[in-house]
Amino acid sequence: MSEDQPIIDPWAAIKIDDYEQVFREFGIESFVPYVKAFPDAHLLMRRGVVVGHRGFQLIYDCIKSRASFVVITGRATSGPMHFGHKMVFDLLIWYQRHGADVFIPLSEAESYAVRGISWEECRRIGLEEIVPSLIALGLEPTARIYFQMDTLSLLKLAYTFSRKITLNEAQSIYGFSGSDNMGKIFFPFIQVADILLPQLPEFGGPRPTVVPVSIDQDPHIRITRDVAERFVSEYNFVKPSSTYHKFLSGLKVDPETGKPGKMSASDPETSVFLTDPPDVAAGKLLNAFTGGQPTVREQKEMGGNPDICSVFEWLKYHLIEDDKKLSEIYHVCKSGDLTCGDCKSYAAELIYAFMKDHHRKREQAKKIIHKYMMQP
Amino acid sequence: MSEDQPIIDPWAAIKIDDYEQVFREFGIESFVPYVKAFPDAHLLMRRGVVVGHRGFQLIYDCIKSRASFVVITGRATSGPMHFGHKMVFDLLIWYQRHGADVFIPLSEAESYAVRGISWEECRRIGLEEIVPSLIALGLEPTARIYFQMDTLSLLKLAYTFSRKITLNEAQSIYGFSGSDNMGKIFFPFIQVADILLPQLPEFGGPRPTVVPVSIDQDPHIRITRDVAERFVSEYNFVKPSSTYHKFLSGLKVDPETGKPGKMSASDPETSVFLTDPPDVAAGKLLNAFTGGQPTVREQKEMGGNPDICSVFEWLKYHLIEDDKKLSEIYHVCKSGDLTCGDCKSYAAELIYAFMKDHHRKREQAKKIIHKYMMQP
Repeated sequence: MSEDQPIIDPWAAIKIDDYEQVFREFGIESFVPYVKAFPDAHLLMRRGVVVGHRGFQLIYDCIKSRASFVVITGRATSGPMHFGHKMVFDLLIWYQRHGADVFIPLSEAESYAVRGISWEECRRIGLEEIVPSLIALGLEPTARIYFQMDTLSLLKLAYTFSRKITLNEAQSIYGFSGSDNMGKIFFPFIQVADILLPQLPEFGGPRPTVVPVSIDQDPHIRITRDVAERFVSEYNFVKPSSTYHKFLSGLKVDPETGKPGKMSASDPETSVFLTDPPDVAAGKLLNAFTGGQPTVREQKEMGGNPDICSVFEWLKYHLIEDDKKLSEIYHVCKSGDLTCGDCKSYAAELIYAFMKDHHRKREQAKKIIHKYMMQP
Repeated sequence: MSEDQPIIDPWAAIKIDDYEQVFREFGIESFVPYVKAFPDAHLLMRRGVVVGHRGFQLIYDCIKSRASFVVITGRATSGPMHFGHKMVFDLLIWYQRHGADVFIPLSEAESYAVRGISWEECRRIGLEEIVPSLIALGLEPTARIYFQMDTLSLLKLAYTFSRKITLNEAQSIYGFSGSDNMGKIFFPFIQVADILLPQLPEFGGPRPTVVPVSIDQDPHIRITRDVAERFVSEYNFVKPSSTYHKFLSGLKVDPETGKPGKMSASDPETSVFLTDPPDVAAGKLLNAFTGGQPTVREQKEMGGNPDICSVFEWLKYHLIEDDKKLSEIYHVCKSGDLTCGDCKSYAAELIYAFMKDHHRKREQAKKIIHKYMMQP
């Protein structure tokens, strides 16, 4: 979102700045037309987080005609979910409410092969940290969540696909080096199989599928669409569609740019985790980087800058559903009528309330996990 | 077996000629001491087909002390079994009678990735061609036969192992090229997992394991022993042992050497298949290359040469159990008292009887296949 953009107008054409060039180069299309076409577009769509897509028309048509389609996104079992991950599952739940069959692979193969986490720990993280939060966020039990290593048809499908990709191709797509372990090198095939698994007859058969991913995941999408094409005669696959979302910023300033840095699972202060106690979550927002002036006096004179403020980003993407309310805050910040202290207190209150509710729902969720886990 | 060796003395030290050099280089040990140590050594042991080993003392000790051990060998689902394959399963059955837990992976991953055979055809070949012959050869139902792609714990184990082998290592062992497909590149890990699977707790836990293979399979054995070591802290694996057997010759002469050529599944005249009708099998032996002289007169004067004769090899490794009988034939051939015509007729009679019995047993076997197939 650019600074000169009236961010509170959900239907305005969204400039995607840094992304436009990349999109043109790789043949990704703008998501803007769909933002306008859905009267109840998700706030991450209408506030410019979902910026691009491949083949989304198929999904739009399914939603409009109430035809069967799939949404799928995976979650690595390498640690608890933070609010960057939450965003994707908020979208998933939106699709579920619009008729999608939801599939969620718990991507333990990646956690094991790339991060060296033991199978036992992958299992624990999946069942104790991730799944309860997915349910607490509002996922309905028609969703099918699975561990990759529990799912024979997935592993067989991954191996099936691997026959039609050469080592050279895999290396050119993923840039493997000789010192990479073979698990890391085979993992992408499991990920490709995750996306196409729902189209096997026993999981509902061929149908449109949307995969919401961050921009950097586009190579996976391209190879998956390519594999779908190479195996179309055997499986009658519909080429999967994708949407691309921006990264959300972290809570700490990047000293080089003076703007919020990245969220990083390895630095707990850069984000809020869905397992953080409410007061810890609130404390993180109270300590967050803002777009305010050095003193209250300067703030009152010159106004704050919500466009580079991580607290405002939190309000925009997670804490305030109401567009009018968000717009008000944007303007009183810019005009200097809102101090960062007051704004952070407000954000902290909201996240405290959210987390308190989330923890209560997580405890309830733990009793019904089995309803969501796909039977092998 | 060299020409100056009295092949009919099962306890004589066996010279392994071409193999000795290779063995010394790669640290393979001679099997001869064990031939002498088993009063009931299998004819393929005592007649010099099983020539080398790694770590066989472990297996010997298990047999002597009636301790639990495993024998495992796979069979690719790329076509019916010929007598070269039969040899390995004759050994397997010998081990089973000496107390081994038998595991037989039907190696459809290889057939699919390397030979491009569809999963459906792999399945058909396994169930209709291979398994009935395994049962007919005398395998007891305690054996566990499985399709690789039915076996979740196998695929998980293969992936588990792949984390501790780099692409460079895999390439140096197997000599992959960039144009090889990724299925072929991942396949060896499935094969390594086949060998170590029986040591998982649910399949009987850590214990000595012997893998009878032909010499060219030693790289697989070396990497498997290496993997067992790298994962010993997680699984407590006992390093698998191996025995090495010579290739059996084919029924046709190699024009370059003047000796019998190779058995080749792609040239049906080079071997007898366990699915051949009895008269076809007999006909193949009647047409086989022998070590005889050009004319009967010359044969009577100079004698035949059983040491380069494919028919004699068939008698020695498959058709005559009795050492004394085999010795007689060897000598009457050498002395010129046996013509090739009579000898081939005799061999043809024996194989006709064997195949007739084998087909009868195959038909019975088809009704009890389920007793042998491992439940996923």
